Amino acid sequence: MQRYKIKIAYDGTSYCGFQRQSTDPTIQATLEEALHHLDQQPVQVVGASRTDAKVHAMGQVAHFDLKTPRPAKSIQNALNARLPKEIRVLEIDEVEADFHARFHAKQKVYTYTLSRSSLQSPFLRHHTLHFPHPLDLSLLDQAIEILQGTHDFIQFSNTTSKENRSPSTVRTLYAIRYEVKQELMTFFFTGDGFLYNMVRNLMGALIEVGSKKMSLAALAQLLKEELQPRAFTTMPPYPLTLKEISY
Amino acid sequence: MQRYKIKIAYDGTSYCGFQRQSTDPTIQATLEEALHHLDQQPVQVVGASRTDAKVHAMGQVAHFDLKTPRPAKSIQNALNARLPKEIRVLEIDEVEADFHARFHAKQKVYTYTLSRSSLQSPFLRHHTLHFPHPLDLSLLDQAIEILQGTHDFIQFSNTTSKENRSPSTVRTLYAIRYEVKQELMTFFFTGDGFLYNMVRNLMGALIEVGSKKMSLAALAQLLKEELQPRAFTTMPPYPLTLKEISY
Repeated sequence: MQRYKIKIAYDGTSYCGFQRQSTDPTIQATLEEALHHLDQQPVQVVGASRTDAKVHAMGQVAHFDLKTPRPAKSIQNALNARLPKEIRVLEIDEVEADFHARFHAKQKVYTYTLSRSSLQSPFLRHHTLHFPHPLDLSLLDQAIEILQGTHDFIQFSNTTSKENRSPSTVRTLYAIRYEVKQELMTFFFTGDGFLYNMVRNLMGALIEVGSKKMSLAALAQLLKEELQPRAFTTMPPYPLTLKEISY
Repeated sequence: MQRYKIKIAYDGTSYCGFQRQSTDPTIQATLEEALHHLDQQPVQVVGASRTDAKVHAMGQVAHFDLKTPRPAKSIQNALNARLPKEIRVLEIDEVEADFHARFHAKQKVYTYTLSRSSLQSPFLRHHTLHFPHPLDLSLLDQAIEILQGTHDFIQFSNTTSKENRSPSTVRTLYAIRYEVKQELMTFFFTGDGFLYNMVRNLMGALIEVGSKKMSLAALAQLLKEELQPRAFTTMPPYPLTLKEISY
């Protein structure tokens, strides 16, 4: 028995997210099928992040055990030969048997990309949100200042019932930054972890503030009190990409 | 009655090419359906190039007539609101009744893009050919020198039966150039017109020469004699994009 850590990229457009479901195609199920073929027995894949349907990854991390150990590089080649082109194993390493892709993750970076041109390129429709409307960059910068740091982000999670809630909804958002390249405006969210739909909700709040529809005071209030009425929407999943995970 | 010229971009991945067919989805049929809705009667769209299934466009040009003239900008907005996001009308102009998108085209530029990294990014699989093998740039440059200019390109057309052949198979290839940006190597083909599958065949020949599988002499011979056995293959359609048409 040998444990392996893989770093994978995927285009999530045609997948119902990372996590295995009963019938819909998922990244986990597709990986497990390829590994089952390789190891001649069922293999369980544990991913660091449960990305949603249509969400992409350039640096998702996962681990699995093989009963029959093989050289890491030959596993990578065998998987890439068998997997659909939407999923690529970028890196693979042998790790200790107690390595855990989810529990040992220290930092994650997600990106969310807006297309700012008046007409969205047909080639970007599955990977960017067409948002040609004005955004006040000074307000955006101030909103980012408010959101960065350690806060209870319960208002930015879509699981608000006590049952489904994470043990703690406090997270540290190390940084939010954005860069503009031609028509694309990409936001980078770096944190120690993210609640369910948190990046898409943060993005919704940032767009509300940048569009002058929500005040900075209202945004700050969201980090202080529980269960306010939402003044922002959960943004769509397809412009979201899991960029990188650090251990 | 007013004639309009449109410049359109499309992601051809899910389409069976530009030209209308009986049942399969095509760019022409999709445009005609949107225009039918706008003009309340059937409208015929004439495209400059009959791009193949899975081929993309950033600058396809077409013309059509509307019985009920409207401001060009309002037609553009109405079409973009109705068309799927895979097709965008980038520009629209009123033109004289004798303008013809195909017959009046003076110059066309196609691009063909290779992904040169050891692993192809999942995000590029519908738009680049994964070709991680060595290419001799000096041989490529000499092959380009041979191909540029005015030649009978019959050997680079997939229609070799006399019936289906264009009246003339002589074309002028003004330039072939390539640029390398990170993992991408993009070839630009500029000519006064292209025979059926000509760019995909030129690309096949360039790759054979760059891979040292076909000699420069054999390439030059292809431009001189008819109906030799093919020493290259027709490259796949999805890395091909109709970039620009000049009038």
